Parts: sequence; C-alpha cells; structure tokens
Amino acid sequence: MERIEALSAVVRDANADAMLLTGAVNLIYATKQTALEGSLLVNGQGQAVLLTDGRYIEHARKTLAPNGFTVLLRDFTMRETEQMTQLLETYHIRKLLYEDNVLTVQRFRWLQEQIPCEWLPLQDRMEQLRAYKSAWELECMETAQRMAERAFTKLLPTLHTGMTEQEAAARLDYFMALEGSEKPSFDTILLFGAHASMPHGVPSERRLAVGDCILADFGATYRGYHSDMTRTLAYGTASDRLRTVYETVLQAQAAAIAAAKAGDPCKAMHLAAEQVIADAGFGAQFTHALGHSVGLEIHEFPTASKRVETLLADGVVMTVEPGIYLPDELGVRIEDMVVIAGNHPRNLTQYEKAFTILPENIESI
Amino acid sequence: MERIEALSAVVRDANADAMLLTGAVNLIYATKQTALEGSLLVNGQGQAVLLTDGRYIEHARKTLAPNGFTVLLRDFTMRETEQMTQLLETYHIRKLLYEDNVLTVQRFRWLQEQIPCEWLPLQDRMEQLRAYKSAWELECMETAQRMAERAFTKLLPTLHTGMTEQEAAARLDYFMALEGSEKPSFDTILLFGAHASMPHGVPSERRLAVGDCILADFGATYRGYHSDMTRTLAYGTASDRLRTVYETVLQAQAAAIAAAKAGDPCKAMHLAAEQVIADAGFGAQFTHALGHSVGLEIHEFPTASKRVETLLADGVVMTVEPGIYLPDELGVRIEDMVVIAGNHPRNLTQYEKAFTILPENIESI
Repeated sequence: MERIEALSAVVRDANADAMLLTGAVNLIYATKQTALEGSLLVNGQGQAVLLTDGRYIEHARKTLAPNGFTVLLRDFTMRETEQMTQLLETYHIRKLLYEDNVLTVQRFRWLQEQIPCEWLPLQDRMEQLRAYKSAWELECMETAQRMAERAFTKLLPTLHTGMTEQEAAARLDYFMALEGSEKPSFDTILLFGAHASMPHGVPSERRLAVGDCILADFGATYRGYHSDMTRTLAYGTASDRLRTVYETVLQAQAAAIAAAKAGDPCKAMHLAAEQVIADAGFGAQFTHALGHSVGLEIHEFPTASKRVETLLADGVVMTVEPGIYLPDELGVRIEDMVVIAGNHPRNLTQYEKAFTILPENIESI
Repeated sequence: MERIEALSAVVRDANADAMLLTGAVNLIYATKQTALEGSLLVNGQGQAVLLTDGRYIEHARKTLAPNGFTVLLRDFTMRETEQMTQLLETYHIRKLLYEDNVLTVQRFRWLQEQIPCEWLPLQDRMEQLRAYKSAWELECMETAQRMAERAFTKLLPTLHTGMTEQEAAARLDYFMALEGSEKPSFDTILLFGAHASMPHGVPSERRLAVGDCILADFGATYRGYHSDMTRTLAYGTASDRLRTVYETVLQAQAAAIAAAKAGDPCKAMHLAAEQVIADAGFGAQFTHALGHSVGLEIHEFPTASKRVETLLADGVVMTVEPGIYLPDELGVRIEDMVVIAGNHPRNLTQYEKAFTILPENIESI
C-alpha cells in the first residue's frame, strides 16, 4: 500500500476527496499488477477501491484484497456510471481528480454528464510521481534489461549473410520472449548498412552483407517495466569511417553520462554529447534528442533534449543514446539506460560497448 | 485520394471547413501508410495537407505527394500550434472537426487555447466510416489471416509434452513475424488444459501434458490491418466432455454465422449462438460477447453482443467466437472472421475446424 499512500498524498495536496484511475499504466503503478482492468478510486484517507468485472475479479481478489484494497465486482444490472455514482456517495466523494492526460475528450464528457461531482484535472501529477523510480522498480527494469541483453547475445551468432532485417528482428523478439519478456518494449529497430541512417527505420527485406553496420535498438518488459538499449556492430569488415563514427558516438555517450548529475538541467546531458559530436565534425548528423525517461512507458517525463530545463533528480531513469547518421552510408547509435544518483549515475546496462566486428557467417542457423 | 474524398464528404456533412487527424489509426486510414506521424488537415474541397517532421518527411513526400497530398515540413523555429494556426489561415479554416475519440482532455485543451477556431467534435464519424471495409481493406485482412494460419500450421508439430504456454506463444508470434506479420494483432492467448477456462488468460509457465486442451487466440497484421482467430485442439487424447463441448461450440458458431445478415441487428448473431449453447446445457458457461468488428484496430465498432441493436451491413467484418468455459477443467473457443455480404457472410478464415487430437510429441523440436 505504499503507492496508495503516495497517491493519497496527491489527493490531499490537490484539496480533492479522491482520484479516479482507469489508464492501464496508472493502474499498474497503483497496484503493481499488470493483468487488471477497471476503475480505481483512491481517497485522501489511504483507502483504495477497485471496481472490476468477471474477467479480472478472481485475480484482483487474490492479489489486491490481502494488501488492503477493497475489490468490488462490476454489477451489470446497472450502468457503469450508476455504480460509480453510488461508490462516490458511499465514500462521500465530491471533489474527484481525473486523468486528463489519459481520458479522451469523448469519454470524459460522458463521465462528466453521468456522474455528479466536481471534476479536477490530475494534470501531470502521475507522470511526476512516476518519474522517480523506487528500488523495486529499478529491479524490474534491470530484470528486463538482462533479458534483452541475453537475447542479443544469443542473436548475434545466428546472424548470417543474406538474412533480412525482418528475420533478424523477429528472432530477437522471439529470444526476448523466451527469456521471459512480456512483450517487446517497442517495435524493434534492426537495420543493416545504409538503412541504419534512418533513426526510426522499420526492419525491411534488406539482406545482410559483408561491410554493413548492424544497428539494433530494442527492449524487453518485466512486470510492465521497459528496458531500452541500442548497439551498433560491423559485419565481416569495417570501414575506417565506421570506426571513426563509432568512437565519436561512444565518446559522446561517455560525456553525456558524466554530465548526468542530480540538480543539473536535463539539457546538460544532451549538450555534452552534442559538443563531442560537433567537435568531431558531425554536428549536423546528430538529428534527435539524446534520450528520454523510461519506466512503465517507453517514453516518460522528463526528456533529455536541447531545451529541457527540468532538473535531473535521483531515481530518474534516462536513456543516453547519441547517434550519427550518414545518409546512404551508415548509422551508429549507442544507448544505455542510467539512473540518476547524485553526481554519478548508475548504468543499468551491462552489455559491452567496445567496437566489435561480427565474423562473417555464411551458413544459416 | 478516394479516402480523402470520403473524409471531405464528412467535413461537408458536418458543416465544417476541415477535419484535423492526428490519431495513428485515423492517419493510416486516410493515407494507407503505416509509417507516418503528423497532423493531417482535410478540407471540404478534397484537399489534404500533412504536417510532419524530419523523421517522416522523405517517406511522406515519396508516397503521398504523388497522390495529391500537400506535404509540409514541421518548422521547429515556431511552436506546432503556431504553424497549425498559419495553416488554418492559409486554407481559410474556421470550423474544425477534431478527434474527440482520440485526443486526451489535456492535449485538446492545449490545442483549443493556442489555435483560434471553432472546434467541433468528430464524434463517432470516423469509426462509422471505418466500419465498412473496401475490397482493398478486405485483401489486407485476408493477407494477415493467411499469415496467422500458416504460422499456426507450422507451430502445431513443434508443440511437445512439457513445453510451457509462454514458449508456445513466443514461437507462434515468431512464426507470424517470419510470415511477414508487422506485429501480433494483440497479446497472443495460448493456454493449456484448465487454464483455458480463463477467456482472457495470459500464457504462463504451465506445461503441456497429455489430455490437455490447447486454446490459441491470435492474429497477424498487414499494412496496419488485423486478423483474429481462435482454435482449440486436444493434445494426445480427448475426454468425452471435451468432444461434447467442442461440438456444441462449433454448432453455436455455425448458427451465429448463419444469422449474420445485412439488415439484422448485431445481437441476432449473439443470440443464435447463445441458444445453441443454452440448449446443450452450457448457458452459464458462455460468459462473453460473441464477437467484435476488426480492422485497423482489433476491437472496432460495432460489437456482436446481447444488447446491440446496430444493424449489420455489407462490409462489416465481425469475429464469431463463441466459447464454453468449465473452471478447473477446460475451455473451448472457436473463432472466425466473417464479412457481412447480404444474407450470406463470407468467411475470411480458411483454417479447418474439425475436432482434432494433436499426436503426443515427446521430443522437443
């Protein structure tokens, strides 16, 4: 119930009587359960009531009731909003915080018309709360990260000349699932050669050939928590240009990690990487933000980009992913996840980053 | 541009000057492209303007500009809403339809504050339009369906005693990806034995044993379009009870398909299946709606459940998925996708439905 206590404090700070959570991610945050749907009411006195239906009631009773949640079954003889209204009456709730960052305009209008109460927007309070990860959350993210790393280690010796990007991406997703990942953290980006110059490229039927770079950006999930990493390797042989670009990106990443200090603005990390890349003459080829926070969502608040003044603080998990993209030639990105901890962030990524040439492999495995 | 013409007609019917689309699914619908993000304006004169950023501009110029779209690059020297405001002025747009079914309350308030115009909710107009599939859309869905079927055919001989549900589900997803599926249509449900009695069960570490039923509910995607199918088999041997339940579900499905007639209410399909199941004495064990529409989303409008009076019409693609669930024992669901066509729906699913006992397999493959 420590999360419920934190949510309860939000309710009291906002001078409300309760908050209503229905968004998938907020429900996982509040309950630590990923297999639930329903409406969760948390009031200022630390009480939590979940209204859910027959599909989830058994699981909710087993996992939440013993932890102090009240679990109620959705009664289909009345409308959802009627049952909600009764619940608000039971708990004397008049001022209700709602997820303006989750609910669509249409759904909110419907709730507003049917449930008599004073509706107050939660604004970014949930995102702010979720920005600082607990030890337990960090463990979940490290578990996911280890799954992704083991899968990548298994993937590499199976890559071979003539394999398509789609095949390689499908295999990486499969290996992550076998490691226990609930689902890929996002659509896996796995690109060969010149195609890697598209930062958001989609795996295609392009086939692996000697001399290609291989760029893989991927993540696993565990208990709803996401991991995120990128590695770039050479296949068979490497041009001097690829080596130069790689070393530049690696140095840029090191500079950004060194700049990840609690109390400094997020943009400091981006600017540190940008400086290294610009000094090496590739300034115009680093075309995206340095990184983003990660957690129950793959992109969370805050972001590490050029203009973001938000201050870094202990517990924020940020990706550090500088890249250099040379159209029609190659792309290199190296990405770790770090957690801010005073002046010295802790790197949640263990996978090696030394420049690697994957040996040519003619046999398909 | 035939879709733009349809959207343009919506604009004129609503007495608006234009509509603004930003939701992923609506963008795919309007452009037939899955790899785009941005803001699309469609006015009442059949003009379409996409505002997008550097990540997508090249693709948009190649695929949309030749088809009559105007493609504009997001100018980061000004705010998004400033650039949008200029665009509205250029095209003399005062009354703007917005996606109240997609935009969050927070995002809409922000747009409303920054962009001066009269905002009109689209309501369910996009969902209604998308409910009737064109021949091209049906081809995409059949392509996805064939991918799913081929993957399942490949999966079955690899299932073996002791394999976990998670392993089997991961392998099915992998085989679908190898067939060209962009991603699983939804989280694959693959359950063994008594676990199959949970209609929304999540694949677990439960291991396959002789005498289990195997329930697989899964789908592939192609060009953003989803497929959806369920098959239930016996492993090694089958109890009489499993056979009886299976035949009942199969007859219920046949009755529902026979009741799928343009002009009849959606509920007719559900009631036809329910009657067969009730007559066999399993009425209380059919605990969910018969089916739902499918397309660019896995759950679309309308639904085939008990109380839905919406009339079926040609081009609606509906899943037909009755089930019987006996707690602690077994679950059987059989699901096809059919497209409404007069009095005789066309079944998009080709995979066989005769009761099948998968031979016991001791070796892991």
